[in-house]
Amino acid sequence: MAKVSGFVEWLPEQRIIELQWMDEIRRAFESYGFCSIETPAVEEIDALLAKGETDKEIYVIRRLQEDDRGDARLGLHYDLTVPLARYVAEHYNDLVFPFKRYQIQRVWRGERPQEGRYREFYQCDIDVINNNTLPLHFDAEMPAIIYEIFKRLGISNFQLHINNRKILEGYLQGLAIEDTIPVIRILDKLDKIDRDGVLSQLHSELSLTGELAERCLALASIQTTDSSFVEQVQNLGVKSDLLAEGLSELEFVMSALSDLPEGVVLADLAIARGFDYYTGTVYEGKLTDFPSLGTVCSGGRYDNLAGSFINRRLPGVGISIGLTRLFAKLLTEQKLKVGPKCPTQVLLVLFDEARRSETMQTAQILRERGFNVEVYHTPGKQAQQLRYASRKRIPYVWFLPYEGKGHEVKNMLSGEQFPADPNTWKPE
Amino acid sequence: MAKVSGFVEWLPEQRIIELQWMDEIRRAFESYGFCSIETPAVEEIDALLAKGETDKEIYVIRRLQEDDRGDARLGLHYDLTVPLARYVAEHYNDLVFPFKRYQIQRVWRGERPQEGRYREFYQCDIDVINNNTLPLHFDAEMPAIIYEIFKRLGISNFQLHINNRKILEGYLQGLAIEDTIPVIRILDKLDKIDRDGVLSQLHSELSLTGELAERCLALASIQTTDSSFVEQVQNLGVKSDLLAEGLSELEFVMSALSDLPEGVVLADLAIARGFDYYTGTVYEGKLTDFPSLGTVCSGGRYDNLAGSFINRRLPGVGISIGLTRLFAKLLTEQKLKVGPKCPTQVLLVLFDEARRSETMQTAQILRERGFNVEVYHTPGKQAQQLRYASRKRIPYVWFLPYEGKGHEVKNMLSGEQFPADPNTWKPE
Repeated sequence: MAKVSGFVEWLPEQRIIELQWMDEIRRAFESYGFCSIETPAVEEIDALLAKGETDKEIYVIRRLQEDDRGDARLGLHYDLTVPLARYVAEHYNDLVFPFKRYQIQRVWRGERPQEGRYREFYQCDIDVINNNTLPLHFDAEMPAIIYEIFKRLGISNFQLHINNRKILEGYLQGLAIEDTIPVIRILDKLDKIDRDGVLSQLHSELSLTGELAERCLALASIQTTDSSFVEQVQNLGVKSDLLAEGLSELEFVMSALSDLPEGVVLADLAIARGFDYYTGTVYEGKLTDFPSLGTVCSGGRYDNLAGSFINRRLPGVGISIGLTRLFAKLLTEQKLKVGPKCPTQVLLVLFDEARRSETMQTAQILRERGFNVEVYHTPGKQAQQLRYASRKRIPYVWFLPYEGKGHEVKNMLSGEQFPADPNTWKPE
Repeated sequence: MAKVSGFVEWLPEQRIIELQWMDEIRRAFESYGFCSIETPAVEEIDALLAKGETDKEIYVIRRLQEDDRGDARLGLHYDLTVPLARYVAEHYNDLVFPFKRYQIQRVWRGERPQEGRYREFYQCDIDVINNNTLPLHFDAEMPAIIYEIFKRLGISNFQLHINNRKILEGYLQGLAIEDTIPVIRILDKLDKIDRDGVLSQLHSELSLTGELAERCLALASIQTTDSSFVEQVQNLGVKSDLLAEGLSELEFVMSALSDLPEGVVLADLAIARGFDYYTGTVYEGKLTDFPSLGTVCSGGRYDNLAGSFINRRLPGVGISIGLTRLFAKLLTEQKLKVGPKCPTQVLLVLFDEARRSETMQTAQILRERGFNVEVYHTPGKQAQQLRYASRKRIPYVWFLPYEGKGHEVKNMLSGEQFPADPNTWKPE
């Protein structure tokens, strides 16, 4: 009986780094005023399917002792957006808008395990939801927060692609293409199937003429690290009100982000994100070193998130970090150094049972001063106790007074040993 | 479509306190050198049932698109002990023993919702596992850590009942009772069905003579805040090796805890905990103000935790805090003050759109200095912006220079407003 495949778990020395990541992400979210919420792992199946997301593999749950034909009414959430919509609708009167929340939780998908795909993984989401209208300024705040987080995590090869679905929709409308969705779906695949693949699918699947397909591709090929995409689109000679609106919105977002280092954000007119509910800005973050890994961060703006739960117009914008996928990849690629096997900073040597109480008192003094401290569990050879510290990568070993000496501390890295006072000692 | 009954979720002002609790608990665990691990929500059903815990209502999961008769092979864990056993067995060669881990995760039980019972709740577990033998000292460390945590959480009406199953078993053996388990089950109910109830059940269900039942009850009635239980038991005139061993172990634990304030721990010879795998020390923590709430913290020692997963003898001792039950009760009873609706410490007033960039720069200066900061999302009436701060209980509102004044900060509690410098300001 082993861990189930597709479900990941970390060794202590890996988990300690994952925890540090979560702390950093939380601190960044909170520094922008986002509050924490958590929702149950479980929602009603009807709610999970409300957005028509039938392509998600949902896990349903039932009680073991229940009749086999028990109504399969409950399922594990597959993202944190549907639960957010339900939460906002349910607690509407208790929330202050704009409602800015973050949510760091596991989600579940019944997918076949493959690289970068897990059946259970952490997502770290932030969203802002407001009544009726939501300033575009928030669309620019999301990438700024994400940049901040990747900087804190020390991940430099990150790039956030940004688009606005109004540009895609409006441009295709300007080309008099009526059924825009399938075209957008194909254009969105540009980074996977390249130019020829896109042209060929537009032709074979949607019967677009070669010229029309080329014009679609011309838009989708535009990528700029600043607002110069506007001029490039205008040069294509296609016009519609929606296109103009989309261009103006994306220009606003890119300008607001112009203080970030060059290349951190990229206007990329091909990306659309699959979800139907995105209506404006869309985000897709990738590691430039690992393009095959796919998206590690994504999101966008929706005109009306909670429409299926409450009769109010609640626009929102949000972004989600695929923590587990990102963390697992960097671990596998050895881009992340694992931590120690425990949080202990000081191990106190236990000379003999008679001195246990005194040793524990010294430990308590250090603990009250904020250190993580262990007393070795059993009296015995010093070599054995030092070996324990070394194997758990505990950086300091403490010796109580013995053989005429006072308290002493050994730095396990340098091997040096110095006198120390439990009331004043600090790691050098 | 609402939140499913039996599944709890908190408002932001409640969640912020739950997060503080989790931080405190984590800090306490780490201060004793326990490392963090997390296991998947899902285990194989066979593993979940390996301990014969058929009284737990397990949720099984299957993919929605799967055939209805798909093998119900996976279930959500109902505690964190079975997953720990599987984890230790699976990663045995990568762990350093004694392995000291904490685990703060949700667990799921398909129970009927009732007060203090949830279908999904957080448990905060610590356990120490070792090869072959595990010093008794750890049995005393668990209550010390738990005491530390309840102190940090400001919960004073907490009492930890401690017993040793060897005392119960050994005493009943000394009375020549062969089938001890059903007797122990009834004695364990002493706090719920009182003395007469226990006597009557021992008689009617197990056909114990009145005299024998009284002698069982005499043991189970012993409660002492120190080691004086030893003498009281000896005065009952029953003897067995196992009893002597149990008394000596519990005496060791109670003596080691004699520095704690009187009454925090209590030797209570009635408690047994239901689980079969406890073999020595057992713990049961309660809030003295809310006896009907039942156990908020429990655990004990097991001779061999992972026996069904690995062919090694791995004794352990651990304790678990029922975080959700405890937190929900104290919230309901208004023993806990909810927090603010967001972590924001400073709201920056946005005078007009033209000054947004400057305002955001000031926000960034404060953020880099470690403060949680929001810029109000849209320019408008100051009264409206102040009202937002007040509704979200943001303690400070910041005004950029205007009308000849410099930067100023308003303390929302006192109403006072003072000049301030974003590079040096501190909350008073």
